[in-house]
Amino acid sequence: MHTDLVAALDIGGTKIAGALVDGQGRILVRAQRPTPAEAHGDTVMRSVEAVLGELAASPLWERASAVGIGSAGPVDASAGTVSPVNVPGWRDYPLVAGVRAATGGLPVELIGDGVAITAAEHWQGAARGHDNALCMVVSTGVGGGLVLGGRLHPGPTGNAGHIGHISVDLDGDPCPCGSRGCVERIASGPNIARRALANGWLPGPDGDTSAAAVAAAARAGDPVAVASFARAARALAAGIAATATLVEIDIAVVGGGVGKAGEVLFAPLRQALAEYATLSFVRRLVVTPARMGTDAGLVGAAAAALTLRTDQAAAGV
Amino acid sequence: MHTDLVAALDIGGTKIAGALVDGQGRILVRAQRPTPAEAHGDTVMRSVEAVLGELAASPLWERASAVGIGSAGPVDASAGTVSPVNVPGWRDYPLVAGVRAATGGLPVELIGDGVAITAAEHWQGAARGHDNALCMVVSTGVGGGLVLGGRLHPGPTGNAGHIGHISVDLDGDPCPCGSRGCVERIASGPNIARRALANGWLPGPDGDTSAAAVAAAARAGDPVAVASFARAARALAAGIAATATLVEIDIAVVGGGVGKAGEVLFAPLRQALAEYATLSFVRRLVVTPARMGTDAGLVGAAAAALTLRTDQAAAGV
Repeated sequence: MHTDLVAALDIGGTKIAGALVDGQGRILVRAQRPTPAEAHGDTVMRSVEAVLGELAASPLWERASAVGIGSAGPVDASAGTVSPVNVPGWRDYPLVAGVRAATGGLPVELIGDGVAITAAEHWQGAARGHDNALCMVVSTGVGGGLVLGGRLHPGPTGNAGHIGHISVDLDGDPCPCGSRGCVERIASGPNIARRALANGWLPGPDGDTSAAAVAAAARAGDPVAVASFARAARALAAGIAATATLVEIDIAVVGGGVGKAGEVLFAPLRQALAEYATLSFVRRLVVTPARMGTDAGLVGAAAAALTLRTDQAAAGV
Repeated sequence: MHTDLVAALDIGGTKIAGALVDGQGRILVRAQRPTPAEAHGDTVMRSVEAVLGELAASPLWERASAVGIGSAGPVDASAGTVSPVNVPGWRDYPLVAGVRAATGGLPVELIGDGVAITAAEHWQGAARGHDNALCMVVSTGVGGGLVLGGRLHPGPTGNAGHIGHISVDLDGDPCPCGSRGCVERIASGPNIARRALANGWLPGPDGDTSAAAVAAAARAGDPVAVASFARAARALAAGIAATATLVEIDIAVVGGGVGKAGEVLFAPLRQALAEYATLSFVRRLVVTPARMGTDAGLVGAAAAALTLRTDQAAAGV
């Protein structure tokens, strides 16, 4: 029997996606369920099992040798548990044990969703060929992950790269995480929109007050919209520069809904990065849009499972 | 012939120290010269060669199998060059080639001085037994280094862990590095003293305006002195929390002159850390004083050389 595939799970607050993925990152079979985010933890687990059950119904299932999970965080890879902020029924929930049981004992690798996106961009996307990279998602929240020395750096608990919650403004506004002046508190989509509205930006006749609407206004030259994106760009630049100064990266990949805003974000981001990334060893740092699409979480979870399999083979397991 | 020793060099703006060090980190032979910091680059190199010459005069020299260098930064380990801020004659200076030539071709490992201190604390000091650690020097400047996954993380150019120049106040005061609101700009000894003086602190009859004098005043209850240390502690806490949130560390070791201030620094530092390190996977982070003394740079450079030797042995070199 060939065991050339892995199963991948991408678990968020809205949906639970699953796939069978081959060694080239191609998705061969898909399954998906909505996340019953407000339900009891075991009910959420039933949805995960339903996704796995649908995958297992495929004749390709018997070729799957491991499961990779990218989950909304925080996660605890060392304990095999997850506590996604938007899924209150899961607090220190033993997801890895549940998935192992549901798959007849397949080895399971758990990483945070920011780390999964990073694995995907490093394997197939904008960070390909870069041994030291930061990959970010700038959207409703701000997340990320790191590649250091050519390998994914999930950290002991699978949460490394949490750039959204580093403070770049130590006296700044309180963040829901409990800290102040976090990158996310300044640069997330809702915060870009909130700041534009507070400073007098008026939405169009459709009443759309999303960050995408602010981006459209900025593109049309609205100075308040431009300023809100510029402020977000400064916070992102300070966070990216801090990361580069701490661990040495040569590329920062920015994706997510806000990342799709294009030059409205990237032009002030590049300018601000030159102001904050000043030491000799970080000056060549490049910032670039993400290349992976909506399947990044699944492809990244598959990459983690494939690495697990390779590491086990190397260790003779 | 036994080759159980390594030569170590600790190169700063004031002195060039050298030693022969054994596999347990014991210093067996020492040599030292002042750094002719304002001289031509080749003149500075003559002082390095004089230190090496003095070591080579020892009968133990023939047991040295590698050289480790910890140098004031920035360094470029990939190019083998150094550009210490306080030694203007050395800009992209080929230090590794010079040391290799002066030692008859011994293998040479170059790291930044913050990374060297970290190697020493991890090997013999406060970070011993910790697989994920940040070690810092808070003094005239603020430097540092990282241990990740049980190994030193110098980064491709040997500069990783440069926590002094991450911005924790994106609208803050300009820093000599070109950025704004850097940890060093708020928390270094000279900045602690400057802020205390600006806010009305009066030095004692000896006229001492050093950070150590401010620390003594804070210990005696002077509120302006206390406030200046508290502000430095907040900046250090924001930087340490950012590092933990980005790469997952479980201990932060703080040394250097300011680190010796004791509870005047550590009490507000622990309090501020609880405010900035809020995510589940960083809440258990411990901050603790450094344990290595003035030989930390030499011991750390030796550790880097020993690791190089081990890696080469593993690779069959």
